[in-house]
Amino acid sequence: LSVAEHPLEFLFHPKSIAIVGASTQPGPGSGFLMSLLDMKYPGKVYPVNPKADEIQGLKCYPALLDVPGEVDYVISAVPTQFVMQLLDDCAAKGVRAVHFFTSGFRETGDDDRAGLEGEVARRARELGIRMLGPNCMGLYCAETGLSFMPQMPAEPGTVTFISQSGANAGEYCRSISLRGVHTSKSMSYGNAADLNESDFLDYAAQDAKTEIIACYIEGVKDGQRFIKALKRTASSKPTIILKGGRTDAGGRATMSHTGSLAGSMQVFEAACRQAGALLADDMEQLIDCTVALSLVGRVQGPRVAVVGMGGGHSVLAADAVASAGMELPHFPEATQRALAEFTPVAGNSVRNPVDTNVGFGPEGERLQRETLRIVAEASNIDIVFFQGSIGGGPRRGVEQDEMVQRVKKLAATTREVMEKAGKPVVVPLYPPFDRYAVEPVFTFQEEAARIGIATFPSIARTARAMRKVLDWQEKDPTSS
Amino acid sequence: LSVAEHPLEFLFHPKSIAIVGASTQPGPGSGFLMSLLDMKYPGKVYPVNPKADEIQGLKCYPALLDVPGEVDYVISAVPTQFVMQLLDDCAAKGVRAVHFFTSGFRETGDDDRAGLEGEVARRARELGIRMLGPNCMGLYCAETGLSFMPQMPAEPGTVTFISQSGANAGEYCRSISLRGVHTSKSMSYGNAADLNESDFLDYAAQDAKTEIIACYIEGVKDGQRFIKALKRTASSKPTIILKGGRTDAGGRATMSHTGSLAGSMQVFEAACRQAGALLADDMEQLIDCTVALSLVGRVQGPRVAVVGMGGGHSVLAADAVASAGMELPHFPEATQRALAEFTPVAGNSVRNPVDTNVGFGPEGERLQRETLRIVAEASNIDIVFFQGSIGGGPRRGVEQDEMVQRVKKLAATTREVMEKAGKPVVVPLYPPFDRYAVEPVFTFQEEAARIGIATFPSIARTARAMRKVLDWQEKDPTSS
Repeated sequence: LSVAEHPLEFLFHPKSIAIVGASTQPGPGSGFLMSLLDMKYPGKVYPVNPKADEIQGLKCYPALLDVPGEVDYVISAVPTQFVMQLLDDCAAKGVRAVHFFTSGFRETGDDDRAGLEGEVARRARELGIRMLGPNCMGLYCAETGLSFMPQMPAEPGTVTFISQSGANAGEYCRSISLRGVHTSKSMSYGNAADLNESDFLDYAAQDAKTEIIACYIEGVKDGQRFIKALKRTASSKPTIILKGGRTDAGGRATMSHTGSLAGSMQVFEAACRQAGALLADDMEQLIDCTVALSLVGRVQGPRVAVVGMGGGHSVLAADAVASAGMELPHFPEATQRALAEFTPVAGNSVRNPVDTNVGFGPEGERLQRETLRIVAEASNIDIVFFQGSIGGGPRRGVEQDEMVQRVKKLAATTREVMEKAGKPVVVPLYPPFDRYAVEPVFTFQEEAARIGIATFPSIARTARAMRKVLDWQEKDPTSS
Repeated sequence: LSVAEHPLEFLFHPKSIAIVGASTQPGPGSGFLMSLLDMKYPGKVYPVNPKADEIQGLKCYPALLDVPGEVDYVISAVPTQFVMQLLDDCAAKGVRAVHFFTSGFRETGDDDRAGLEGEVARRARELGIRMLGPNCMGLYCAETGLSFMPQMPAEPGTVTFISQSGANAGEYCRSISLRGVHTSKSMSYGNAADLNESDFLDYAAQDAKTEIIACYIEGVKDGQRFIKALKRTASSKPTIILKGGRTDAGGRATMSHTGSLAGSMQVFEAACRQAGALLADDMEQLIDCTVALSLVGRVQGPRVAVVGMGGGHSVLAADAVASAGMELPHFPEATQRALAEFTPVAGNSVRNPVDTNVGFGPEGERLQRETLRIVAEASNIDIVFFQGSIGGGPRRGVEQDEMVQRVKKLAATTREVMEKAGKPVVVPLYPPFDRYAVEPVFTFQEEAARIGIATFPSIARTARAMRKVLDWQEKDPTSS
């Protein structure tokens, strides 16, 4: 079965790129060249700037038409007034797509500038040139060496992020990557004068390298087309959407940001839900749900076991899990009995949450593994939240190195238990509280990412993400 | 005007402490001695354990009655079965108060053990001994050298935290301390067989060293007395309450933790609200509200200016602020005009949120300060949320040292603007995202704590905390 190449596939495989208006000074606009060098982009890169002979070690050309070879793709950082001329040069040069980092159009709220944006889009269409933006960061595709920011993750993955905002795209791709989930493609498309959310949804649905789709959308260009594209996409791959401009204040901000009309949130949400998409409330949830869908996958039900830090922490953990709409059943008698065999009565609980205050050292580690195993095998539990107290609070008498070894073992144990029980074990991993916690937390994070354990920055976020995924699963159009 | 000493004042000034059942091995129970040494407790400390001659460099006694001098206060880490005998020894020794770390009572759910707890409390009362716990961590008072955990902050402050949970008490006191707010006293009182929340509320209301009171309560011993005590306390000092066991699952956990009946959340909340207390939803909010009340104080109204990181971040910031019930008005014309004078049109906004993408170096810093100043002086703004992008994402070409200097300057600028405008400027400071961000974030945190700038770990948490404080302010019983 051969699938015809999607008409936007070429965007991710340019053989040569010109950066027109490449900056010689550090600052916004100088990053594109650096980004391509960072990603070891294998094609030709041509900086264009009449005021420089060389930028970052590459020969610089005074104008696009001075570039000797062919140019597939242009990144424009020129001021607004040179944009029309640049389009004509692109046509003369046989350029197939232009990314306009250039801003100062519809988002300014100025009628003349909005008018110019329309003219640019019309001209590009006449010339047969596809256009990203204006006022956006463009493309990131680790596999083919494209990037919109310096120091982006180099590892390609299976998530595609369609984002009107470049800042949010950078944050999203970096965040999921630290948590072990990587990006196939990300597109920051700004004012969406030509290519928009529907084009990219359509592309992502067909792209063989994309398994999960996430979107950050401020305003939709063509409602009917969007719903149609979303329906098709969400029925083939899990699709998560975060809407920017959910409130009146946010809506005013989308106007200033990408010139987008935020529209009615009620209408938007209802339509997305009907199309089968999962709706995230904020960036944190968008990231958490991506991690859950990617590393946890389908969960059997809402019954959570919390293996935790004991005391008041366990009480608040139970409240957080229940408040998020997940369940925390008492364990079956057999499970409680098995736990009670080695858990001291005083100061501990073998119900749910379970305390893991079983001491330190090899014996403590064995008992913790045993606790985790028994809990994961409990018949009335669908998912285990394991809080290992990693980096939690100051501790004396444990050297950093020893602590690092300990958390590495903890990650391996988690993975082992998960595989044996055939049930997800996820880890609420709080950000480092103080300097002492930095190494244990980041080390566990890296290990977890490496071996595919899902982590979430708090127990509340773990529970909320799992609830979101469960709610979506119930009506999941991809499951039939 | 002289105020009679509160009958519980003596608890915080013991001249000598015996730790009975002091452990010779590291682990739970060995921490109390270490805690007192950490805090440089100036009185006499006597470890008691028949199996040791010396613990942590201090002479160890076989039994309490073998201690040569007077003993004011006893910390009990002995097993449950020795507790009645210990009480008799305490009486013989003239001990005025005992803290029972010893657990294995009502919280086990076992009737005999609950019965024993009752007997212990009766016996203590007969002997005229006040009792903390059982099943708790006891007292922390930096001023007089008491502590319930090793490595607690040494700096005394003005907040008193009354907590049924020792773990939550430790987390709370450490968290506020890192954010520049310090603790006067904290009591972890566990099963509350004798001293309970009402005793400590009463004490905190009268204590001259306490300005703000926070509580973590799982279950109330005597509802009528609690409401009376809370009313009196909340009408004299800001009082924040977090209830553990807000949900059914949480309620089951409070039973296992401190043997507390969580009771109806609706009834509890209504009573607290009527008494004039501020109710926090979780530990994060308890901490955030404490920081807000302590460092920000009274806010004039809900009108927020966000000076931020631009782009999609600003859109989501606006959504987060508005979702929390705060307002984000457009600036007056004059403010917009003043900002527009030096803010580039393209890629920026001078409405609200304001982007601070004004470049780096001394000129960038001047413009950022100028932006902040103009915004803080806007006539329709009550509070400024300033996101300086501290530690946000990888950056190249800036050495760690330079970055650290930059964030120190940023903290100073924030303080300067706040003072000049006579209006609060608070900082949403996200936890370090990766290793690169650790130094800038922790350095800013330390500087902010040192000079009294309130920080919150996200813009959503900033907005939610300020909303809570405003709601409480409207009915604040301490303001009349």
